Amino acid sequence: MLSYSFHNKKGSALYEQLYSFIRNDIISGILPPKTRLPSKRSFAANLGISTITVENAYAQLLSEGYIFSIPKKGYYVSDIILADNSKEAVMKRAGGPEGAAGLSRTGPGYPGADAGSAPEGGSVFADFTSNQTRPENFPFSVWARIVRKVLTFHDKDLMTRSPGGGIYGLRRAIAGHLRQFRGINVAPEQIIVGAGTEYLYGLLIQLLGFDKSYAIENPGYEKIAMIYDSYQVKKHYIDMDHHGIRIDQLRDSGADVLHISPSHHFPTGIITPVSRRYKLLKWAGESDSRYIIEDDYDSEFRLLGKPIPAMQSIDHQQKVIYINTFSKTLSSTMRISYMVLPMELLKRFQAEMGFYSCTVPNFEQYSLMLFIDEGHFEKHINRTRKYYHKQRDHLLSAIKKSPLASEVTITEEDAGLHFLMKLNTDIPDDMVIRKAESLGIRLNCLSNYYVNAPEDAGHIFIINYSFIEPERIEEAVDRIYRCLT
Amino acid sequence: MLSYSFHNKKGSALYEQLYSFIRNDIISGILPPKTRLPSKRSFAANLGISTITVENAYAQLLSEGYIFSIPKKGYYVSDIILADNSKEAVMKRAGGPEGAAGLSRTGPGYPGADAGSAPEGGSVFADFTSNQTRPENFPFSVWARIVRKVLTFHDKDLMTRSPGGGIYGLRRAIAGHLRQFRGINVAPEQIIVGAGTEYLYGLLIQLLGFDKSYAIENPGYEKIAMIYDSYQVKKHYIDMDHHGIRIDQLRDSGADVLHISPSHHFPTGIITPVSRRYKLLKWAGESDSRYIIEDDYDSEFRLLGKPIPAMQSIDHQQKVIYINTFSKTLSSTMRISYMVLPMELLKRFQAEMGFYSCTVPNFEQYSLMLFIDEGHFEKHINRTRKYYHKQRDHLLSAIKKSPLASEVTITEEDAGLHFLMKLNTDIPDDMVIRKAESLGIRLNCLSNYYVNAPEDAGHIFIINYSFIEPERIEEAVDRIYRCLT
Repeated sequence: MLSYSFHNKKGSALYEQLYSFIRNDIISGILPPKTRLPSKRSFAANLGISTITVENAYAQLLSEGYIFSIPKKGYYVSDIILADNSKEAVMKRAGGPEGAAGLSRTGPGYPGADAGSAPEGGSVFADFTSNQTRPENFPFSVWARIVRKVLTFHDKDLMTRSPGGGIYGLRRAIAGHLRQFRGINVAPEQIIVGAGTEYLYGLLIQLLGFDKSYAIENPGYEKIAMIYDSYQVKKHYIDMDHHGIRIDQLRDSGADVLHISPSHHFPTGIITPVSRRYKLLKWAGESDSRYIIEDDYDSEFRLLGKPIPAMQSIDHQQKVIYINTFSKTLSSTMRISYMVLPMELLKRFQAEMGFYSCTVPNFEQYSLMLFIDEGHFEKHINRTRKYYHKQRDHLLSAIKKSPLASEVTITEEDAGLHFLMKLNTDIPDDMVIRKAESLGIRLNCLSNYYVNAPEDAGHIFIINYSFIEPERIEEAVDRIYRCLT
Repeated sequence: MLSYSFHNKKGSALYEQLYSFIRNDIISGILPPKTRLPSKRSFAANLGISTITVENAYAQLLSEGYIFSIPKKGYYVSDIILADNSKEAVMKRAGGPEGAAGLSRTGPGYPGADAGSAPEGGSVFADFTSNQTRPENFPFSVWARIVRKVLTFHDKDLMTRSPGGGIYGLRRAIAGHLRQFRGINVAPEQIIVGAGTEYLYGLLIQLLGFDKSYAIENPGYEKIAMIYDSYQVKKHYIDMDHHGIRIDQLRDSGADVLHISPSHHFPTGIITPVSRRYKLLKWAGESDSRYIIEDDYDSEFRLLGKPIPAMQSIDHQQKVIYINTFSKTLSSTMRISYMVLPMELLKRFQAEMGFYSCTVPNFEQYSLMLFIDEGHFEKHINRTRKYYHKQRDHLLSAIKKSPLASEVTITEEDAGLHFLMKLNTDIPDDMVIRKAESLGIRLNCLSNYYVNAPEDAGHIFIINYSFIEPERIEEAVDRIYRCLT
């Protein structure tokens, strides 16, 4: 009869040891297929252990398929076919999960950290490419108070599955915000909450169709093109003039869906005037398959005048899908965005995609709901708008006072969080960027956002000022000046 | 000259009133295209308001495109083309955002609540179709303590953008858990954290290819088929025998990617034995385009013996993509799942899809990291496993004691959270389900999970016992019995 010696006859690990011994012998061939294993009782007596231990080991081997049983006859070794060179590997680890340590894959072969995880270099003094908001502007103590409130008053709600579009209370709060701040009048049901706009773009491709073609802005936010590519749908780059997307090119492209940010285009800052908006709506109305995705990513930060009314609010043909995010107004680490579906599309979404679970945790949903309902969101937007207004003025005044002033032209500075700075230089853009990098300044240029950049897009830099530490502004401006000399 | 009378000459709303008046007149045609507007100064004097107010109103009209300016000449009305029947609608709301209330879309037309948001009927006594966990099993006080700790010690981390795959600390914690509980030995970098498995399936389709075809289990979890359909990729239903997916059908299908839950199939409970696993790995190894998605959704709840080793742990060809979720072990409302990518796929993921932001908020990521690191997760799993073991035994013993005992056969009861109950009856499944519903019992049958259910799949019901309130078990069993009479 089989015999094994145990390391330690105490504790629950005993059956695991026995299981490993037998498993080893099966894999190595010591116990060939169809071998009959000893009966539980006699095996237990022989090894000096309890029948229960043998029973547990057999049960485990049975459930993993190493052995099979024939009723009233006993247990037999299975015929296991190992995949190419698996046999050797399995033998190595046959000591059980612990033995697997020897097969660790954390060798030099792995590709290191994520593309997105590169730590900020210690040498970066000012990053004008980052559109993140300053962590210290997040209303942390208010948020912490809200979080505690959610834990206390919504403990049961936290464990109750959210509807696919998000909890009703949050959608009601967002609808209220849209009514008050954007003149958008929609039912809470039309609002679909999701884990970031990137996720919502993907949902929209599924909803509108993989067979549709998508028109995007040139220049534009590069991630949008990447997402359409990742979904392998046809996309068209449409050039922009000073009023936004060019209608003639849009028509020529044959695109079905237009994805634009008419209220503050990134990176040019262009605001599409109302006449162009109506022309775009007219284009959309000409075919059932046409839709406009209105990406309203930073409308809350318009620094002068009232916010530009959303296209959604002048669309009476159910053609505009409005998208916005809390990444800019609160924090990009919160991953809450939403879209507003026209009624017809909403019905289709519920019928075809209503099975999707909401991707935002209940915790964030209830916290944000209370944050909006209690008026903190409105206060926060007003406070941060003032902060960015001041930050912009600080930066503009620092430029004015520096020798850089006579070398630059600033445009599109009235909408929020970034403006364009044209440098009076012949130095190629990439050289300016490298020179700046060597001085600890991160810059990006407009031409990088184009497919086939036109001549006049040269020497224009995008100045995101939201992430710059105020006390570094003067020095940062001075360093930019040094790039020209 | 134009003249308007203001409701109230005080406050910042003055320029908004002026803006609305002019905008109204432009849209209604009172001010036709190319009309020259009065100069700011004379207009202000005429209306008895400040020049700044007129300036602000003009600036707003300008930025929205209702007027345009010719330098040193003045401001002119734009030529606005309204889309079909927009003109009338715009006129209605031309009083400004407040006026828009009349256009509210919250009429009877909207399609009501989400598919997923239907409130649980007050008449449901016991729901055997829900695989949710009981809210009271969530370790709420520990979690609340962790949340407070995150607020205190990780306040800055909360505002720092997460790498695309998730924060390193959480991925390290998950890698440790996998090593300890599943014999899976991977680098934290191989782990990609995302907002639910549904989201991760979508990422995998983008990574593996829209041109690939996907094999799924028949019967199987219906959402998986729905997601492949929503992405419009080719899918094949593969029948199962008692050892899992049928290799012959898999080969015949020509599928590239196999999506299975080998350690505890839903709904049959089948555990794929190791011999079949090696055959599946062999199949995968035969072509570069082949992969296996191993969906390990409830392996933590195996009630007898050790957990079944994951296919990932015996795969030495980089062919298995392991997916798991915290929906079962913690709460489905937390939306945290993860996948483990083989090295080669990871490199491709980083190159082609590294631009995607992580969909899980930092807050949940840090909370879960601490929860695992401090040992609470392990304790929680052990505690809930015991709870479900007891719950299952309670239910089985209630069945045994009831007259139902002689009418049922129970199978697949050793893995977690559900088992199969075959009823000795000729009543069609849908009639049993309707009868049960009328008695406040929600049931679902195995045949509903099949495409073309075989004859012998009839009269088998899936008993999810995780969500049943213990004190209702006896009564629920009695009501099931009454469905047969």
